[in-house]
Amino acid sequence: MKTRAAVAFEAKRPLEIVELDLEGPRAGEVLVEIMATGICHTDAYTLDGLDSEGLFPSVLGHEGAGIVREVGAGVTSVVPGDHVIPLYTPECRQCKSCLSGKTNLCTAIRATQGKGLMPDGTTRFSYKGQPIFHYMGCSTFSNFTVLPEIAVAKIRTDAPFQTSCYIGCGVTTGVGAVTNTAKVQAGETVVVFGLGGIGLNVIQGARLVGASRIVGVDLNPEREAWGRQFGMTDFIDARGKSREEMIAAVAALTDGGADYSFDATGNTDVMRTALECCHRGWGTSIVIGVAEAGKEIATRPFQLVTGRNWRGTAFGGAKGRTDVPKIVDWYMDGKIAIDPMITHILSLDEINKGFDLMHAGESIRSVVVY
Amino acid sequence: MKTRAAVAFEAKRPLEIVELDLEGPRAGEVLVEIMATGICHTDAYTLDGLDSEGLFPSVLGHEGAGIVREVGAGVTSVVPGDHVIPLYTPECRQCKSCLSGKTNLCTAIRATQGKGLMPDGTTRFSYKGQPIFHYMGCSTFSNFTVLPEIAVAKIRTDAPFQTSCYIGCGVTTGVGAVTNTAKVQAGETVVVFGLGGIGLNVIQGARLVGASRIVGVDLNPEREAWGRQFGMTDFIDARGKSREEMIAAVAALTDGGADYSFDATGNTDVMRTALECCHRGWGTSIVIGVAEAGKEIATRPFQLVTGRNWRGTAFGGAKGRTDVPKIVDWYMDGKIAIDPMITHILSLDEINKGFDLMHAGESIRSVVVY
Repeated sequence: MKTRAAVAFEAKRPLEIVELDLEGPRAGEVLVEIMATGICHTDAYTLDGLDSEGLFPSVLGHEGAGIVREVGAGVTSVVPGDHVIPLYTPECRQCKSCLSGKTNLCTAIRATQGKGLMPDGTTRFSYKGQPIFHYMGCSTFSNFTVLPEIAVAKIRTDAPFQTSCYIGCGVTTGVGAVTNTAKVQAGETVVVFGLGGIGLNVIQGARLVGASRIVGVDLNPEREAWGRQFGMTDFIDARGKSREEMIAAVAALTDGGADYSFDATGNTDVMRTALECCHRGWGTSIVIGVAEAGKEIATRPFQLVTGRNWRGTAFGGAKGRTDVPKIVDWYMDGKIAIDPMITHILSLDEINKGFDLMHAGESIRSVVVY
Repeated sequence: MKTRAAVAFEAKRPLEIVELDLEGPRAGEVLVEIMATGICHTDAYTLDGLDSEGLFPSVLGHEGAGIVREVGAGVTSVVPGDHVIPLYTPECRQCKSCLSGKTNLCTAIRATQGKGLMPDGTTRFSYKGQPIFHYMGCSTFSNFTVLPEIAVAKIRTDAPFQTSCYIGCGVTTGVGAVTNTAKVQAGETVVVFGLGGIGLNVIQGARLVGASRIVGVDLNPEREAWGRQFGMTDFIDARGKSREEMIAAVAALTDGGADYSFDATGNTDVMRTALECCHRGWGTSIVIGVAEAGKEIATRPFQLVTGRNWRGTAFGGAKGRTDVPKIVDWYMDGKIAIDPMITHILSLDEINKGFDLMHAGESIRSVVVY
């Protein structure tokens, strides 16, 4: 079949809207009509050539929502007509990681996914006979895409595509970091560094679980209003503040240090501050942001010996097929908000504008609606 | 009163055995006759001038066992004749840390203890009229010492002093890192870097809780026999191995990575290896060793984002008055071994020999018996 798609033919060049050839689903695969897709910093990170493992030509995009249109042999968990969110972190429920109950990092198809291929080692996309790579196992910048059955979460049919697609990455990453990874409890204190889309979702996750104090930190004072909209109780303007000053400012608001801190900046210096502003004895800092290639985090081991914990999260610790439908429920029940975060709705032809808005810091989330 | 003591008059000089003046216990304090004391690397660290906060002249020593001889006003939890282990990490049961239930790092007397003083800001020791500082709130290199009531753990009277003193630091630090901090469960895998006294106690802690695989790592192949004596199942000779080779060697023995790793070396490069050899998704590395002043640990944040946890422990996460008596029970019940680790028994006059043996790597633990 044919599908319209935004193709990244090479790094550092705008996407091109073209018509691709798409092979139908093989055994264990499903064909999904993508109805909407968010544009995420990770897509830009790859397109800008910063990901040393980025592959071209490829169809980027990993934050979508759509409808199953066809299933391959042996597929049992979804049928045509089901609404789904593609999962860049699949959930096979059979690998050591899935069975451990201790991580969401399913390894069933990791090797081929990292090579831009389907689990059988081939690609479904081609352009004028030339193979086009998949991206993060999703490729939602295509109106139709093929996914492994284990990489789709079936969701309720009354959830709007243009908002629930954001649950495919940003919402789940931020909210899940609080609920799944940190397991913040009512009455605990939270500090969030970076009030972009991820940080705002950390904030509303913290509000959801009843955190007593939710401190937001950003260099941009205009983000204070955004943070307060989602439950932030206090704002620290980080401009001109040294690490020591930041730690003191957090301590003053949290009775000596945060129970939990979250880095949503990707800046390794901020990650250190986030750790060190945690409370002695039990404070836990969670790295969410993706750092530049080659950058390292550092601290004195004394910080750990005196009881601070340094952890990380990917896809908010969410088991895709199990947890994503729950987050959709939270959204539909009004427990978390998404609509105000979708600042721009674009057509596929306008997708490069979405990247421009993101780079300029003018969007929380731009969504392409097909 | 008078007491014989080994005094550190200044850094980088042998201890001098002299007779000190010792004031009796004030309100909330107890006088303890130290019957035996271990010589720990931390004492040497201070004596060698590596601790920038080390104070002189002082009475070092923090790993003792003895008998309460006198109590000050208001003391209710011990009486003269009770056997006790001094606690460099006290347990007041009233501060925010103690009440949190999440840490053993009681803060009740932290400020004065760090200044070498009793909680009222004075010292009980003096020599020819000159005040002598306390050390880690214990000063067990003195035949008699004064301690806050909250800094003694009452133990059973049938436990021999010359072995149970080791529970005052090394045993609890190693065993407790496994049982209190990591909470290793039966069937999990453990890797221990550094098979000195702490490392051996980590090993027997792992054996105690039923770890399935207990891997020891050291640069000294003679330590393999020591490790196996306490439950180590596999040994990796670290000589000449790169970090990548170490990680691969651990992965081969632990089905892809350790559930828990422990650094008992104090070397920040080893701490990094210890983290990175943990299993993706859930592996937790625990820093026990004290690093050189100014040294930092580092890693790529990717290590955390893919599910590894970096933590630390002090005094094995043990609440002194609550947990130390339990560890004495474990010892007396034969669940853990101490006797073979006490490689040298010395008199107070021979205490400097104990430091020499430790520096030369010829002892697991030297104990001074008064």
